[in-house]
Amino acid sequence: MRITDIGGEQGLIERIAKNFAVGAGDNLALGIGDDAALIDIPGGVQLVCTTDMLVEGVHFRSDWSDPYSVGWKAAAVNLSDIAAMGADPTYAFLSIGFTPDTSLEHLDRIFDGFVDCLTRYESRLAGGDTNSDPERMVLSVTQLGTIRRGDALRRDAARVGDILLVTGSLGGSAAGLALLTECGVARAEKIDKDLVTLHRRPQPRIVAARAAVATGKVRSAMDLSDGLLIDARKLCAACGAGLRIDTASLPIADSVRRAAAQIDRDPIQLALTGGEDYELLMAVDPAAVDDVVKALGDVGVPLTPVGEIVRAGCRVVAPNGEDDLEIAVAGWDHFQS
Amino acid sequence: MRITDIGGEQGLIERIAKNFAVGAGDNLALGIGDDAALIDIPGGVQLVCTTDMLVEGVHFRSDWSDPYSVGWKAAAVNLSDIAAMGADPTYAFLSIGFTPDTSLEHLDRIFDGFVDCLTRYESRLAGGDTNSDPERMVLSVTQLGTIRRGDALRRDAARVGDILLVTGSLGGSAAGLALLTECGVARAEKIDKDLVTLHRRPQPRIVAARAAVATGKVRSAMDLSDGLLIDARKLCAACGAGLRIDTASLPIADSVRRAAAQIDRDPIQLALTGGEDYELLMAVDPAAVDDVVKALGDVGVPLTPVGEIVRAGCRVVAPNGEDDLEIAVAGWDHFQS
Repeated sequence: MRITDIGGEQGLIERIAKNFAVGAGDNLALGIGDDAALIDIPGGVQLVCTTDMLVEGVHFRSDWSDPYSVGWKAAAVNLSDIAAMGADPTYAFLSIGFTPDTSLEHLDRIFDGFVDCLTRYESRLAGGDTNSDPERMVLSVTQLGTIRRGDALRRDAARVGDILLVTGSLGGSAAGLALLTECGVARAEKIDKDLVTLHRRPQPRIVAARAAVATGKVRSAMDLSDGLLIDARKLCAACGAGLRIDTASLPIADSVRRAAAQIDRDPIQLALTGGEDYELLMAVDPAAVDDVVKALGDVGVPLTPVGEIVRAGCRVVAPNGEDDLEIAVAGWDHFQS
Repeated sequence: MRITDIGGEQGLIERIAKNFAVGAGDNLALGIGDDAALIDIPGGVQLVCTTDMLVEGVHFRSDWSDPYSVGWKAAAVNLSDIAAMGADPTYAFLSIGFTPDTSLEHLDRIFDGFVDCLTRYESRLAGGDTNSDPERMVLSVTQLGTIRRGDALRRDAARVGDILLVTGSLGGSAAGLALLTECGVARAEKIDKDLVTLHRRPQPRIVAARAAVATGKVRSAMDLSDGLLIDARKLCAACGAGLRIDTASLPIADSVRRAAAQIDRDPIQLALTGGEDYELLMAVDPAAVDDVVKALGDVGVPLTPVGEIVRAGCRVVAPNGEDDLEIAVAGWDHFQS
């Protein structure tokens, strides 16, 4: 049997959770199925632990990303999972595999980017492992964090009727990647270097997460790595509900619309299914939305309502009020394959 | 500049520790340079964290090891680092990369072996990441553990005059690997399947470590992954000292001597530089050796004195009392390259 026969990565993760991993119990407060695991430790604190592997040629391309950016991204995607729980990052561990001909200067640049990203978000490198890999670079990161017990923004805590909001704007990383794919590095950087940088060096929403937890009014959160549509479905599935997304409300930067127009791509599609935004998706009670938007605004992070958690189904509503089945199905298919 | 120009992996780790990682401070009690990091948490406890990556074709060969054994070994080598600190394992996180044609049954067997090893040593799978890798399987594990503050068996705590002791026996894994290398799977298993199994499925010394900590008389420990000579040099380097190893005292099983004879290898060389024993090396004050040997004997683990920590240098003493320069230099060279 193949992985595709059980619904791809999501099916595999569910299988591992069911057959091999341990569920919550003892001092494990939250196991597989969220952005990070939560382990109760003394003092009313929870240890947060997440791990993410980046494989050259799969998660990054060395001809599209400089080594500094590769290191940065390896740290950022893991810090983003810590942000998704509303936690404070503490220590990171980096296991790195590389080909024997890798130069020390190349490794130094990777570590420069990795550590600069950690430092920017108050995490530190405390250990790891170095290995050879005959073909390609592999970076496997474990990021630890802490959070006060009861404060974590769990996926399964959202409720029907909650408003879905996203930080920042969507589709920027996907637009940057689309520029690289379709125009090559030199032209992509000429068209919009900021979008390319968004793709290469995502910024985890640690500050926004901290502000969200401080309000005490954010019910649930996750980070957007696979695209809003797929990720929002995961969040809603975790609380046994469905969702509605209003495409007219999606925060999409003018630069994304301009780049999309130049390469004949739909900016809405980029925002909904492009992925790697590393923004936060939050579920908030309607009565608390204004307070949360203000709190995040106070730390300089825009927070935009994009839809709602409903009883069941997955509706993507176009600006004319009709269901955009094409996009909804595209998101669905990606989720299944 | 190449990695080999700075002394290989050990030089690279020192460079990372110096230029990129954070040293002890705040609540980090111990950073890079030991078997695992130690982080102070409330309640007089330390969190222990280690990470180790296994790359197919480098750390294991799929034609020599069944998938169950690959999973087992990935857990075991990480648990061995927890044992090396004298700690209790708690939760493991497994990031796995595999080729798209990998069958679900193959992955299930890997997870079976991984989880069986965790369960045997009272650890549990709490999270991870799944990825595709175009060519080969990569397993990156993070293993957490806990230990009472002050109890950890740190490498840098050994002192000149301490006796060096090893648990179990040495060279078994190396003999199993040598049989596989020189005879192929079928004949290797026919000559001595137990040795081949030692290589495929190492047993971390969790029980021995716990007994060692309970004595309060083991000054320092590490696990033997690169071979006694290289690893003992690391332990002695961590406390700024040298060592003497008496080859006549090395615990080498008869089965290792027999296998070595059959394939024309020196059993002493296998025991000193073969690696992957995953036994524990301990440093104990001479006055406490008997007590520690008895405590480990009580849990069924032989503990054998093999040498001593001296002021400086690296002496390997042959049974005739003369220095065995050939072996000492072989260990030294491996260390440098």
